[in-house]
Amino acid sequence: MTTGRLEAFSDAVIAILITILVLELEVPHEPEFAALGDLVPVFSSYVLSFVYLGIYWNNHHHMMVLTERVNGRILWANLHLLFWLSLVPFTTAWMGQNDFAAVPTAVYGVDLLFAAVAYFVLQRSIVVEEGADSTLAAALGRDLKGKVSPVLYIIGVSLSFAVPLAGLAIYVLVALLWLVPDRRIESSIA
Amino acid sequence: MTTGRLEAFSDAVIAILITILVLELEVPHEPEFAALGDLVPVFSSYVLSFVYLGIYWNNHHHMMVLTERVNGRILWANLHLLFWLSLVPFTTAWMGQNDFAAVPTAVYGVDLLFAAVAYFVLQRSIVVEEGADSTLAAALGRDLKGKVSPVLYIIGVSLSFAVPLAGLAIYVLVALLWLVPDRRIESSIA
Amino acid sequence: MTTGRLEAFSDAVIAILITILVLELEVPHEPEFAALGDLVPVFSSYVLSFVYLGIYWNNHHHMMVLTERVNGRILWANLHLLFWLSLVPFTTAWMGQNDFAAVPTAVYGVDLLFAAVAYFVLQRSIVVEEGADSTLAAALGRDLKGKVSPVLYIIGVSLSFAVPLAGLAIYVLVALLWLVPDRRIESSIA
Amino acid sequence: MTTGRLEAFSDAVIAILITILVLELEVPHEPEFAALGDLVPVFSSYVLSFVYLGIYWNNHHHMMVLTERVNGRILWANLHLLFWLSLVPFTTAWMGQNDFAAVPTAVYGVDLLFAAVAYFVLQRSIVVEEGADSTLAAALGRDLKGKVSPVLYIIGVSLSFAVPLAGLAIYVLVALLWLVPDRRIESSIA
Repeated sequence: MTTGRLEAFSDAVIAILITILVLELEVPHEPEFAALGDLVPVFSSYVLSFVYLGIYWNNHHHMMVLTERVNGRILWANLHLLFWLSLVPFTTAWMGQNDFAAVPTAVYGVDLLFAAVAYFVLQRSIVVEEGADSTLAAALGRDLKGKVSPVLYIIGVSLSFAVPLAGLAIYVLVALLWLVPDRRIESSIA
Repeated sequence: MTTGRLEAFSDAVIAILITILVLELEVPHEPEFAALGDLVPVFSSYVLSFVYLGIYWNNHHHMMVLTERVNGRILWANLHLLFWLSLVPFTTAWMGQNDFAAVPTAVYGVDLLFAAVAYFVLQRSIVVEEGADSTLAAALGRDLKGKVSPVLYIIGVSLSFAVPLAGLAIYVLVALLWLVPDRRIESSIA
Repeated sequence: MTTGRLEAFSDAVIAILITILVLELEVPHEPEFAALGDLVPVFSSYVLSFVYLGIYWNNHHHMMVLTERVNGRILWANLHLLFWLSLVPFTTAWMGQNDFAAVPTAVYGVDLLFAAVAYFVLQRSIVVEEGADSTLAAALGRDLKGKVSPVLYIIGVSLSFAVPLAGLAIYVLVALLWLVPDRRIESSIA
Repeated sequence: MTTGRLEAFSDAVIAILITILVLELEVPHEPEFAALGDLVPVFSSYVLSFVYLGIYWNNHHHMMVLTERVNGRILWANLHLLFWLSLVPFTTAWMGQNDFAAVPTAVYGVDLLFAAVAYFVLQRSIVVEEGADSTLAAALGRDLKGKVSPVLYIIGVSLSFAVPLAGLAIYVLVALLWLVPDRRIESSIA
């Protein structure tokens, strides 16, 4: 089976999640700048989650360029990733509406952690199908970022209980790590 | 007519349904773990429906790989399936928000039953078009799971009126039956 | 320019509209069958609009199979059609929540009328681009249904002010007319 | 990397935004024409934003026809554009619900301004990748409309603080400028 529909379905789900996020930005009743001020925490969480979903879409896109065929196991590993991503609008809203309180900020990180693990599992399932000597396996190499991220999320979640903004800073840091484009795959394609 | 647009449209509808489900998870006001506790019934129904929509997408995907052409009848059989699936967010929310009360749990099962029947009708329409000696017809074989599922749903619905959680257990059982990948089709493709 | 993206965009918009419709079905608080009874008008409007959006998607799909290239004018004619379709969830909810009162039922028909006109305009723009001797022009023939529908909508809208259910009956009648598959195009493709 | 998935993802996001807009049209409780009257400001903002999103989709579509390959930078430039577009339902609703008050009308224009800048950046990234002697670069020429629009938005935003409807008139004017089809690209394709 080719990757066409898996890509189309994932594109649709991520596109919907990214736009559902914006539904959590409640339209204020007062037509004043001050009303936007109250939205700052919700808006910042929105931006962070938009970037995260963008990163996942981007990496998913890059990975699929090097994937030739899929099987039932890969389809489910992909749905598993989409499951954790589908909770992002919920955790984002909970964190933003509560002004980065400890528990919601930790739960936000737990969701990111599960998504990262699900992405790793998806990647493994594809490498198994493509073979250890495939272009994808070579492009991934030691996959340092993929291995460091879960550790950072765990640190971020733990920190959130004590100093939520420090936990948040870790999540922002991981996002920045991934914003650097994945040159491995782009050079493999070339 | 080729299957491209039917697949794209179905992908989009199922992707939207799967993400609309999450809109029913109301963001709690308190930033405490206890607030998540109240969401357990709604969240469990969410997970079950996510898995069901995943199964439908997966099976639809497998079936379409072996489908070469579609006609007007197939397009409508597909829309008919999407209709029953489109009610899943509604029945899921009703069941979850009422803590698996008898009537909503039964109605949830009735929706699953109609979706299963609609899937069966769609499959028949495709087999008729492809021919009894097509790869799809061979891959489906006796279609045991397809025939047993409606019976199990009817049992689940009936049980729901007496012991809702027993009805729910049947729905979970059917989902597990289908989670086992459909090797018939994957081996036919190979 | 080929039709690929116009089809993908239209599929996505219609898929979203069809699923947004279901958001208007408010989840009742009581876990009783009686609660579903209250939903009957909303649910019936839902079914009617689902069928209408299905018809539009179906006809759009058939028409595009015979369309080879698009230009800027066609893209805008298509967006114009999508505009009137995008109002369907609004008019459906207004009609359903008000138990088929006169004004909302008439407005529902006005939206259907504009959508039908927009579809006609889109069809003309494509025939102009494809040429009067194209397969599409031949398949459409005199386009009787396309010409009768607006007349029927106008009758339905007028009737709605006096006897809303009679207006509604006309809308149902037009839907039934279109449910009969468009054999002209299917036989042209063959 | 080819443009397929970037197009599919952008199509999905814009399609969802265009339909989310309609969710802001609150269904009135009274079944009277007068109830629609109250919706006029919200509805007019809806129409304007629908046209803007249609213009962006249309121009994006035209630009991508002349784009052969994408890289990580282009994917992010595209996500950046989608970010500003994703705020359109929010700014539209805020402006419409407050009857074109000064601040929301100015903020609406600021969002349009950022979207225009993001589109310009995306276009530049693609021209850099395609090369200065590419068909796209030739088709864009001096890109007068692209350079005049941000200036007009800034004028519109400034005017909004004094006379909101004058600001709005500028936004409408820019939309009209773009509604004129981009013949440069269509003739390049031909």
